[in-house]
Amino acid sequence: MLKPILPDPDSLSLSQLVAQLIVVRTTGHLFDHEIEYPAWEATNAQMEHYITDLGVGGVILLGGSAAEVALRCQTLQAMAEIPLLIAADIEEGVGQRFSGATWFPPPMALGEIARTDLELAKAYAYQFGQYTAREAMAIGLNWILAPVVDVNNNPVNPVINVRAFGETPKIVTQLTQAFIQGAQEYPVLTTAKHFPGHGDTSIDSHLSLPVIDHDLGRLDRVELGPFKGAISPEAGKPVDVVMTAHICLSALDKQHPATLSKPILTGLLRQELGFGGLIVTDALVMGAITETYGPYEAAVLAVEAGADVVLMPADVEGCIQAICEAVRVGRLDEGQIRTSVEQIWRAKHKVSGPLGTGPSCHNWEPAEPVTQVQQLAQPEMLGLARNILRASSRQGGAGFRPKGPGQNVILVDDVLNCRYLPRTAPAITQPMGWGYELTLLDSRSSQLPKTELPTVVQLFIRGNPFRSGQNLVQLARKYLEITVGDLQAVIFYGSPYVLEQLALPDDVPWLFSYGQMPMAQSLALETLVGEAIAVEAVDRSFTD
Amino acid sequence: MLKPILPDPDSLSLSQLVAQLIVVRTTGHLFDHEIEYPAWEATNAQMEHYITDLGVGGVILLGGSAAEVALRCQTLQAMAEIPLLIAADIEEGVGQRFSGATWFPPPMALGEIARTDLELAKAYAYQFGQYTAREAMAIGLNWILAPVVDVNNNPVNPVINVRAFGETPKIVTQLTQAFIQGAQEYPVLTTAKHFPGHGDTSIDSHLSLPVIDHDLGRLDRVELGPFKGAISPEAGKPVDVVMTAHICLSALDKQHPATLSKPILTGLLRQELGFGGLIVTDALVMGAITETYGPYEAAVLAVEAGADVVLMPADVEGCIQAICEAVRVGRLDEGQIRTSVEQIWRAKHKVSGPLGTGPSCHNWEPAEPVTQVQQLAQPEMLGLARNILRASSRQGGAGFRPKGPGQNVILVDDVLNCRYLPRTAPAITQPMGWGYELTLLDSRSSQLPKTELPTVVQLFIRGNPFRSGQNLVQLARKYLEITVGDLQAVIFYGSPYVLEQLALPDDVPWLFSYGQMPMAQSLALETLVGEAIAVEAVDRSFTD
Repeated sequence: MLKPILPDPDSLSLSQLVAQLIVVRTTGHLFDHEIEYPAWEATNAQMEHYITDLGVGGVILLGGSAAEVALRCQTLQAMAEIPLLIAADIEEGVGQRFSGATWFPPPMALGEIARTDLELAKAYAYQFGQYTAREAMAIGLNWILAPVVDVNNNPVNPVINVRAFGETPKIVTQLTQAFIQGAQEYPVLTTAKHFPGHGDTSIDSHLSLPVIDHDLGRLDRVELGPFKGAISPEAGKPVDVVMTAHICLSALDKQHPATLSKPILTGLLRQELGFGGLIVTDALVMGAITETYGPYEAAVLAVEAGADVVLMPADVEGCIQAICEAVRVGRLDEGQIRTSVEQIWRAKHKVSGPLGTGPSCHNWEPAEPVTQVQQLAQPEMLGLARNILRASSRQGGAGFRPKGPGQNVILVDDVLNCRYLPRTAPAITQPMGWGYELTLLDSRSSQLPKTELPTVVQLFIRGNPFRSGQNLVQLARKYLEITVGDLQAVIFYGSPYVLEQLALPDDVPWLFSYGQMPMAQSLALETLVGEAIAVEAVDRSFTD
Repeated sequence: MLKPILPDPDSLSLSQLVAQLIVVRTTGHLFDHEIEYPAWEATNAQMEHYITDLGVGGVILLGGSAAEVALRCQTLQAMAEIPLLIAADIEEGVGQRFSGATWFPPPMALGEIARTDLELAKAYAYQFGQYTAREAMAIGLNWILAPVVDVNNNPVNPVINVRAFGETPKIVTQLTQAFIQGAQEYPVLTTAKHFPGHGDTSIDSHLSLPVIDHDLGRLDRVELGPFKGAISPEAGKPVDVVMTAHICLSALDKQHPATLSKPILTGLLRQELGFGGLIVTDALVMGAITETYGPYEAAVLAVEAGADVVLMPADVEGCIQAICEAVRVGRLDEGQIRTSVEQIWRAKHKVSGPLGTGPSCHNWEPAEPVTQVQQLAQPEMLGLARNILRASSRQGGAGFRPKGPGQNVILVDDVLNCRYLPRTAPAITQPMGWGYELTLLDSRSSQLPKTELPTVVQLFIRGNPFRSGQNLVQLARKYLEITVGDLQAVIFYGSPYVLEQLALPDDVPWLFSYGQMPMAQSLALETLVGEAIAVEAVDRSFTD
């Protein structure tokens, strides 16, 4: 199926040009009845309207398996006259969002490794970028909404946390450069986010607008370094896209948040830092924007400020009309819209495979799902995830020899929303094999674990913005106190900041893992007990 | 991709012939790291060995989304020199096992409708068969392991329960005939199971062997009717396959269970009832067989008894060798193996699309996943599921007007294993919208709901063989007693046999639904409250 060449922007109407600036959100699942967030995810009929009638430029996908996304990307591209940019928030690899692909631990695990072995961490980050790009391409994604280049120098940051590559500008710069260079080996877009730095906030911008009072010197010393490194690396190619932050930086703009700020996007990012790629807003439906600006004014302000791409506007059609209207009344310059479309064309050329004799000879052929998905979850990819998990875990206390009957207390935020804990998760099945009965608790539970049995406690606490991180820490403390007499071992899966808030008896063996996925569980239990167990043990039973 | 014609059985070696009799189990997921049952599900490398080196005749899939299965079937067929039969236990439609496709309520819902309107139930059963066939074909499945034609005349039956189409031979015969005729409009195989009738057992054959002492007169009066109807329908085509039961029927064979019994398979089914299609065993790894017979002897006995196809032997390679050895030592006749292969060829011809000028001109071309999956979950399919749910629900008590704050107590068997209860399930989100806080309990919970708040109780109890059905009923009784003072409404999702075990205060509004899936929840809540709510309400919020 050959797609036509990218048209000359001059041949497009104003509304066609503006539509190319818009990225709409839909589910990675194939059917409307599988939509998980009806308020935010367009149905198939809506997608057909947005793509076929309006001609939007891109799509962001959330949810579904890798196989579904592979089919979905093919279907969506087939609707589009101009090839789509298809993006996903795959900060922990493609498997973080789309089951079947490789699920890497969060980037902060690399920061942990960098403390003692920066070169190893850089090598891992480079491979992490390569594999993320390969797996993204394999399922039809051409736009990686990663890496987070924010410096997480505020331990109570409710948004960034383990999504950052570290706590210092130096480590974040080096590791994210490595990630970008690894990904740049492939024709996909990478995204440095969230400009000008989202690491030092204590308010969740999904809900409300954080205000930051740093002066410019501090901004330059801490936050901007990793962006500069991504935009003008000493070696290799610059990052393709910079995503804006929904934060107020009073030193640069007292009126508007960065996403809508001309001094920040055009002044600082475009002119001062000389960024020549795509500027994309963070999702415009987020609370930090919607609580102050209407959906239309927000989109117009973003473009006015210098954004080339508007991500997830609350009302796609209204947003296109509002931007067109702003051009007609002279508030926005049509030349600027055309410049953004030319930026988008360069991005689409990059991701559309080898070019012909010139941009006008470009042809586009979507990937074949069956052959492509077989490139996912290759041994070297799973091996890298395992190596990062191993090298970044922390451990203490004496050895642990499980012997049932016992109790396996697992604490999660929400039992209905933990993809890392399927029925067959090693955190459940392995202790079951020792004769440890499961007690599963979440932030809704008023139930207490039994006190008389030898107990292993496994805590899954990330401090996720949408979750009740702090309540969970309190619960975890309570459970640890209650079971402390019989406490045999504790495993934390998640955030080192939570680990630091929990006081453990000195002699209890414990392990901290950045990962929460089944692979992390299997490795953690194996390491604590000191022998190969869990998934591998079960697997062997089949081939006997 | 054209596949070669089916070869003349005389051109195949003995072990190649025998391999065609074997159906192996694997996951519908694409990757080994997604295998949920490592003891039973072959890895990709094993599948390649079984298909490419050994030449097994078929595959049974469990797990994965419809999209994954579509890709997986294409991959597996591409490995096979002789096209594979690919089967799945889709008794409640394709969506029961593979997400994205239509999930119908269990067949007993049709039996409920048949009590008052047999013609409507038959029309629904016919469409149910059609849609199941269409959705199966759309993802590459060519063998439906349905309908269950057992008569569920034992309310404590732990295996069949709501999987049956009814409690009387007449209703089961009529509805399963309609299902088969509907499916027979398409080139897929249908399967009447479990011969000679599994409806009157109180032992779970997955775990141990049920013994049934009925005389032949009773067998003829009750159990055999639906099989006769499926094999020799008054109108339409006979069922393609009969699956055997792992039960001992002492009146016919005191020594072996039906699966391994020559009097039952060859004597009764083949000769007396004149069944001319494929005879397949139920899974040979099940406890009823493995606890008495080794894996090799079980397979040899099954073929000796008259089975054409051996489903899920514990050791694929050893099973092929054992059957070959039995031929070489004269215990089995090679002519019988060849006859079974000819039966299998007829089945493969049927499912492989239009024939050429004769069987030897047959070509095979696998379906194209992208275009095929778009045929799933069509409005008429979802509409049928909704109609069956509506027409089969029961209701009582006064009207219900929810008003928060309140409590929504949901009781499930295992919170880690309920596909029907995603985070966005109407059973959760709808009461949340009323201001009813969720208390989620399962058979592991020692927690009790609060007593002071107005409470809606939603029970998901099926009496599934692998679950702790009876314990749950006790728990449900307890919770209903505790909350009875403030009990506003009760919804049962699952089995009418559970409903009958629960005593409810007369004045409490209640509803019983055969379905457990989100669609059943949305309908039940909507019906109880008396207005359109739930999923539909949420959906509207998007288009506003």
